[in-house]
Amino acid sequence: MSALDVLLRSARRAQGVLSRASSPQRALCLEVLGARLAAARRAILEANREDLDAATELSPALRDRLTLTPLRLDGVLKALGEVLALEDPLGEERPLPGGSPRPNGLRVYRRRIPLGVLAVIYEARPNVTVEASALCLKSGNAVVLRGGREAARTNLALAREVRGALGDAGLDPDAVTLLEDPSRDAVRALLGAVGKVDLVVPRGGPGLMAFVDEHARVPVIRHGQGICHLYVHADADHAMARALVVNSKVQRPGVCNALETLLVHREAAPQLLPSLGAALREEGVELRACARSAELLRASGVPAVDAHPEDWDTEFLALILAVRCVDSLDDALAHIARHGTGHTASVCTRDPSVGERFLREVDASCVLWNASTRFNDGGELGLGAELGISTSRMHAFGPMGLRELTAEKFVVRGEGQVRS
Amino acid sequence: MSALDVLLRSARRAQGVLSRASSPQRALCLEVLGARLAAARRAILEANREDLDAATELSPALRDRLTLTPLRLDGVLKALGEVLALEDPLGEERPLPGGSPRPNGLRVYRRRIPLGVLAVIYEARPNVTVEASALCLKSGNAVVLRGGREAARTNLALAREVRGALGDAGLDPDAVTLLEDPSRDAVRALLGAVGKVDLVVPRGGPGLMAFVDEHARVPVIRHGQGICHLYVHADADHAMARALVVNSKVQRPGVCNALETLLVHREAAPQLLPSLGAALREEGVELRACARSAELLRASGVPAVDAHPEDWDTEFLALILAVRCVDSLDDALAHIARHGTGHTASVCTRDPSVGERFLREVDASCVLWNASTRFNDGGELGLGAELGISTSRMHAFGPMGLRELTAEKFVVRGEGQVRS
Repeated sequence: MSALDVLLRSARRAQGVLSRASSPQRALCLEVLGARLAAARRAILEANREDLDAATELSPALRDRLTLTPLRLDGVLKALGEVLALEDPLGEERPLPGGSPRPNGLRVYRRRIPLGVLAVIYEARPNVTVEASALCLKSGNAVVLRGGREAARTNLALAREVRGALGDAGLDPDAVTLLEDPSRDAVRALLGAVGKVDLVVPRGGPGLMAFVDEHARVPVIRHGQGICHLYVHADADHAMARALVVNSKVQRPGVCNALETLLVHREAAPQLLPSLGAALREEGVELRACARSAELLRASGVPAVDAHPEDWDTEFLALILAVRCVDSLDDALAHIARHGTGHTASVCTRDPSVGERFLREVDASCVLWNASTRFNDGGELGLGAELGISTSRMHAFGPMGLRELTAEKFVVRGEGQVRS
Repeated sequence: MSALDVLLRSARRAQGVLSRASSPQRALCLEVLGARLAAARRAILEANREDLDAATELSPALRDRLTLTPLRLDGVLKALGEVLALEDPLGEERPLPGGSPRPNGLRVYRRRIPLGVLAVIYEARPNVTVEASALCLKSGNAVVLRGGREAARTNLALAREVRGALGDAGLDPDAVTLLEDPSRDAVRALLGAVGKVDLVVPRGGPGLMAFVDEHARVPVIRHGQGICHLYVHADADHAMARALVVNSKVQRPGVCNALETLLVHREAAPQLLPSLGAALREEGVELRACARSAELLRASGVPAVDAHPEDWDTEFLALILAVRCVDSLDDALAHIARHGTGHTASVCTRDPSVGERFLREVDASCVLWNASTRFNDGGELGLGAELGISTSRMHAFGPMGLRELTAEKFVVRGEGQVRS
């Protein structure tokens, strides 16, 4: 039996313990975890410092994702508190929408159950280690965490507290395991562990996704890349449009819900682009513009690079923005349908018919009207935290919170009914 | 471009039309379909007669599944009416459980959307052709139907009416296509059509499932085999236990929710097994019994075959029942955990603590207390019909109705909010 098989067998056993634990016991575990993380604050930040010192060749986006500041650690604790405050998803039983009882007297319900043993594959961001653990513990799932090697020390320091909290709460620490093997072979083994791993959630770039597509034999929910769009309609409030675009692009450019392509209606462009372009340049954003928008930008003294066709299909994860002038809402919708990755799209308009049509027709996990793309995030949308953002429709679409880590079984109570 | 690519491209286009159609227009299509099927009754039964005449080498179970009687056609029409009466799943928007609006004023909702282009792979049962079409049309999905070659004429007659109804309702007939290529290559091509097929639902035996596991590159929801269990506890009402066991086993032995293994508590066995065994023998059921139950059966003159270990892992789909005497509820739960396929399990007991523990601890898509296993069926549980019965937990578990044919996207309405 391989080391991974041993680990997965322990995880399965621990999941059984967890799924039979009471709601207060699982809640206690999260409370203890919060206290332990607060107490271990200094050691965690120190481990992160060491990871950052060792990681000399990271891109600015990856370095940003890896960095844990005191403020970000506060954010992790806040997310933990929010997950703790959410209703326990397990055991919840609801009657069928069709109405229970059935004509023959059978009472039919659906009851939430855990998924089983999950694996999360992620890069850099150490907050995932805590948030994924918290979500899985609360929803009765075991989880194998496979973080990036660049965050190894930070993740180890965090996972130590998670496993400690499980033990303190009388649960089995093996419900959360950090897979320390940094090789792609380890990922391949997870993806092929049919019957041992119930779900893999990969979070990463196109390289990881291609690897997953090739090797996955267990169910997978892809956290794919986010080529996010914001469309400014002809009638938009320009001050609002500027605020939304700048926030969507620069507030944290290295993450998946950051804006990559701005679409501007041709009637709004002449007045909006000069001031918006200047504001973006002030934040250090490089503009890759279509011919029409480049002309408008340059005419007002804002430098712009000519956009290449591949720019419309690139997740920059950096201070770069593709800009395109469109003739109509229809053109904007067509552009998003062609180049979007099903992640996030926002529209800025005063017209309810335009806003509602955009919300209805854009095929993305999160569609927003007059709001920053940065809100497509489990915490911001009210889920407390997220295990990832699904860009596929199956099982989950968008941020995966507690409910997305459960399934429902049918529960039927009768008095001897038979089928005729 | 291959013939399948052309078909899938047409399906995608038709799905776009369907998803933009109004709720009344989709309902009209189902109404028309009911009228058309009723009018074409004679031709459909005639086509089925031809299929049955041509299928000389079918097992009794497959022959039964293939057969359309006037009564079964009535059942199809009834299912159609029930799907029609269900609430339209599309466009339904519900606030997040955490409560909308968020502290920053953002109003967050989830809205149901279709999955896209589905493919259903199934054997024999022609009612699937109509029920899958009805569910997909109501939920805004296009569907490619790949029925068994033994049902080719019946399916063609039924699909003709479905496509006719789409046309009559002003929709695109290509939303439902019958794939007439009977080869495994056609199945392989569907399973590999990444980006063209959004979900494949295979319904069939272990051979099909192994083929699916090997070739699937698109999302799959397995409708796997049903090794269904019924456990009779020590305190069970014997008349009820007899009725449940006989109905679960013999009412339609060729289908997935039929009973395959009976577990009887040792305190109930001496009194129950002789009368139950006699009742089952009267229905022509072969009993494959463990040593203890075989002894009890034979002592009362009921013939029984010695069960072989593989009998506990066999979906007989025939008038054969494996019978085992167990010492306790714990033993019954352990047997089901080891040999069950996550499909259906029922318990017969008067004791609420036993019943509720069984409902909680058995890991199956449908768990029943004092009811026949035959109720694990979309129509019986109130879903109107089903696309299949998922034996995996991802996206759907148990009968897949309208809701399981949709996803949810996040819809956010703001007034210019940005993230700080």
